[in-house]
Amino acid sequence: MPKQDVLIVSRGEAEPCASAVMREPLTVDQAADLAKVFKAIGEPVRLRLLSLIASHAGGEACVCDLTGAFELSGPTISHHLKVLREAGVIEGDRRGTWIYYRVKSDTLRLLSESLAPAQDVAVTA
Amino acid sequence: MPKQDVLIVSRGEAEPCASAVMREPLTVDQAADLAKVFKAIGEPVRLRLLSLIASHAGGEACVCDLTGAFELSGPTISHHLKVLREAGVIEGDRRGTWIYYRVKSDTLRLLSESLAPAQDVAVTA
Repeated sequence: MPKQDVLIVSRGEAEPCASAVMREPLTVDQAADLAKVFKAIGEPVRLRLLSLIASHAGGEACVCDLTGAFELSGPTISHHLKVLREAGVIEGDRRGTWIYYRVKSDTLRLLSESLAPAQDVAVTA
Repeated sequence: MPKQDVLIVSRGEAEPCASAVMREPLTVDQAADLAKVFKAIGEPVRLRLLSLIASHAGGEACVCDLTGAFELSGPTISHHLKVLREAGVIEGDRRGTWIYYRVKSDTLRLLSESLAPAQDVAVTA
């Protein structure tokens, strides 16, 4: 199986697959894939960027909307956005001069569910 | 306000406080505190340890239950357990020879809720 098939992140038409951290032991591959995403958001600037994008009017934001919140250069912000995009927690598309970023809700939902205590998931499943 | 008051992790009798990553921009302090916890679980061995403990019979496990799953030394496993404990995602208490570790469900629930898309939280709140 190609490595990308075990990613928790839904790709294209693939069915999202929640890693059940709290319900059964993760496999080595599941842990590696999931840890990459948690590592990507385990950085304060990236977590703030994610939060700013998610809560921005219309659910999307361009770099021009984000840089004002940080004392960081544009290229540094762009680097962090790239890490978030590569981890599959945001996606972006270019319109005119700017790339507009949105949170990938499916990925965030899978991350959220992977950490939910087993009894919570049982109630809401 | 002392720094520990803004930690997302419940300490002692303090009320747990979910950081709403998806609903409003995180403050600098909220992002720093939350990122520390995601960084702690953003490592494959630690994520597997967390998962093994959470899914172990009785909801707790000692190092003796965990080392067999890894080709790592006891001290390395203990180091990773210490990082998880310091991040507030597990807790342990000594009984006889061994320390028994349990997942801190309140912390995991807060992490889970912090990443839930806004509409999901609105439905379950």
